[in-house]
Amino acid sequence: MTETRPPAAAADLGVGLLGCGTVGSAVVRLLQTNGEDIRRRTGIGLRLARVAAAHPAKPREVRLEAGMLTPDAAAVVADDRVDVVVEVMGGIEPARTLLLDAIRRGKSVVTANKQLLAQHGPELFTEAKRAGVDLRLEASVGGGLPVIQPLRESLAANRIQEVVGILNGTTNYILTKMAEERWEYARALAEAQRQGFAEADPAADVEGHDAAAKLAILATITFGTPVRAGDVYREGIRRISAQDIQFAEELGYVVKLLAITRESDGRVEARVHPAFLARAHPLAAIGNELNAVFVRGDAVGEVMFVGRGAGGAPTASAVVADLIDIAWNRRAGAHGRVGFVAMSTRPLRPMEETASPFYLLMQVADRPGVFARIATIFGEEHVSIASVVQKSRGETADIVMVTHTTDEQQMRRVLSRLEGLDVVRTVRNVIRVVDGKA
Amino acid sequence: MTETRPPAAAADLGVGLLGCGTVGSAVVRLLQTNGEDIRRRTGIGLRLARVAAAHPAKPREVRLEAGMLTPDAAAVVADDRVDVVVEVMGGIEPARTLLLDAIRRGKSVVTANKQLLAQHGPELFTEAKRAGVDLRLEASVGGGLPVIQPLRESLAANRIQEVVGILNGTTNYILTKMAEERWEYARALAEAQRQGFAEADPAADVEGHDAAAKLAILATITFGTPVRAGDVYREGIRRISAQDIQFAEELGYVVKLLAITRESDGRVEARVHPAFLARAHPLAAIGNELNAVFVRGDAVGEVMFVGRGAGGAPTASAVVADLIDIAWNRRAGAHGRVGFVAMSTRPLRPMEETASPFYLLMQVADRPGVFARIATIFGEEHVSIASVVQKSRGETADIVMVTHTTDEQQMRRVLSRLEGLDVVRTVRNVIRVVDGKA
Repeated sequence: MTETRPPAAAADLGVGLLGCGTVGSAVVRLLQTNGEDIRRRTGIGLRLARVAAAHPAKPREVRLEAGMLTPDAAAVVADDRVDVVVEVMGGIEPARTLLLDAIRRGKSVVTANKQLLAQHGPELFTEAKRAGVDLRLEASVGGGLPVIQPLRESLAANRIQEVVGILNGTTNYILTKMAEERWEYARALAEAQRQGFAEADPAADVEGHDAAAKLAILATITFGTPVRAGDVYREGIRRISAQDIQFAEELGYVVKLLAITRESDGRVEARVHPAFLARAHPLAAIGNELNAVFVRGDAVGEVMFVGRGAGGAPTASAVVADLIDIAWNRRAGAHGRVGFVAMSTRPLRPMEETASPFYLLMQVADRPGVFARIATIFGEEHVSIASVVQKSRGETADIVMVTHTTDEQQMRRVLSRLEGLDVVRTVRNVIRVVDGKA
Repeated sequence: MTETRPPAAAADLGVGLLGCGTVGSAVVRLLQTNGEDIRRRTGIGLRLARVAAAHPAKPREVRLEAGMLTPDAAAVVADDRVDVVVEVMGGIEPARTLLLDAIRRGKSVVTANKQLLAQHGPELFTEAKRAGVDLRLEASVGGGLPVIQPLRESLAANRIQEVVGILNGTTNYILTKMAEERWEYARALAEAQRQGFAEADPAADVEGHDAAAKLAILATITFGTPVRAGDVYREGIRRISAQDIQFAEELGYVVKLLAITRESDGRVEARVHPAFLARAHPLAAIGNELNAVFVRGDAVGEVMFVGRGAGGAPTASAVVADLIDIAWNRRAGAHGRVGFVAMSTRPLRPMEETASPFYLLMQVADRPGVFARIATIFGEEHVSIASVVQKSRGETADIVMVTHTTDEQQMRRVLSRLEGLDVVRTVRNVIRVVDGKA
């Protein structure tokens, strides 16, 4: 049989896999189950050549041919049978060095590594361009949900005005449970951990680090200026209370952890924070562990992509689609066909120079004249109030205020003065409002 | 200035436009407003070379250089300055002959023409493949919403199990208004016409022809077997009443005109009909004139794309993205890089061999024993009942029944027997139920 191997097989793409955990195993399984179907439909043969795993002897769910596994990732990159390197090991090093080595050897690469891309993406893109190879990253944001390709290709005719994402399934699950079950944060987090949606140490999710890394990648490819995870303004969801969520409902909002990037006046802003999102906004309906990316472009108007943003099989779906694309390019002699967007280093807009409406929840002394003193501060700082709810709790009262669009700095001055006011017991929370207007 | 034209311009793609109505004008405008920005971001220059319009002297919103407009579409196709032909004139002829002429001249083509593709798509794809040119069609389904590219590329690693779309904005608007305002069909249609969402003759939309053409295209590219508009089972929304919509709400559903294509046991089904869609289904939240496409694949799970499915600027967004893609291919010497899916002619599944749960609304005589006689027919035909609501109206009663999954043929037998029953005044409506389970 070996001698009658069909000629098409000669053009198969040899895949070297770095990492064989949840995502790596799912890539192996997907190539095994759908490989022949993919060949029939697309004309592309993908052949797993070599797999690096930290512990090759460990029992795994997927079966691999003898000799396929090695602990030596560098040997996989160097292997002549490997045409393209798939990196699903995560972390910065040795992933970065291995990918740079692959690129310099003229091998195209696929990575799902959001931390690496959000820190060293521009370096990797520059090297890939220099070497004339493809660097593909669909799996790094939104799991199997197509996000990178639509932004770079399907929407390429547009000036993109903003990209707003729900990029972290764990926090979306927690906020959905808090709203539906009227649970406090701690209980919803515990349920997310029980369901396997949250890690034992949930900081990367609930503090917004995961969403910030993904947003850095989206901002970079959307606006063509390097944005790193550390450039993204970031607030997590730990301070969100059941009370905040109830007031959101009363006022016509839902609470979501949003990742927002926009361009205006030549400057790019990138921020991750909880938001009061208008119930009519398309993202407001995205519940549980789903992810979604909402894009506003000058020609297309508003479009939204929704799907499961994590998990082995969905992420493998994106990795293998990138492999097929690389194979199409290779067959057509067209490395780097969709070049990385023109990179121009533009100043980012600091958070202090952004503006939005704000929601405030504060506890005050419940006696005459208190509200007037608070309102005076808003007036003196030129912050206009859109709505107020006051609820008496005996000696104290809760005051909820929603402002009109206000400069971040104005708001900070108001907060500083409110906190110095003797009748204000505490400002419980301040949350930006996203009303969905352009 | 002419002599110092930058060398990049020499590689510009010369665009010939057939048709200068709403979409054609929007393509011209988009090239004019975003052309330089597109060049900066993608490295691609798009140069409008010649435009065919039935009435060149007619006043238009867009300005064109003198001599650009001609009534002679064949001359645009033949023009040496035209590298790629964009067809946005609509209709079968002369669009088909013009596109075939362009393809045979070795020119890539972009078309937004759903009627043409839903009737002659396979012929056009075969010719494009033979000539080694690109045939791009993103604008033919869902306006600016990326649908074709995700299905052919981003989700290429998956066996697609089903594609379910809300593909017609007019009917979605009408059904949304009926639900929100509790209007009857006629009033909602009149409002859609007043808002410009429905034509004076609404048949193409409300009878499901528009959705059927788009579904034929989606089924063809998803499953690689030719599906023509005439192959699609089709029911419109004219029979939907405010009462149906109210019962849907009571039972946990919304009413949507769905376009469904699925593969099972090697056969493809394709159908457009109103459906009781479970409120928890992601498509249930898609209101007003929005379009959405929901895809279930074996690796990615469920993903959904949402956007405005019509209009000049969104459709132009898709047309120009296709032009950029063709230009990338051309620069890389890679015509036909993403070949059309392998075409295999497979038998389609006739509607009689499909199955689903059904909703029935009937008016019956309100007297003892009637329900027993009805239930007996269901029992004898082995159709299992999931829920029943009975509402007395004096001499008559309304009976609403929802069945478990039932073969289409069984259901037809039940209906035929119910209609012969003297106590059944009328079967007002029968609507398939889509619960979102795979």
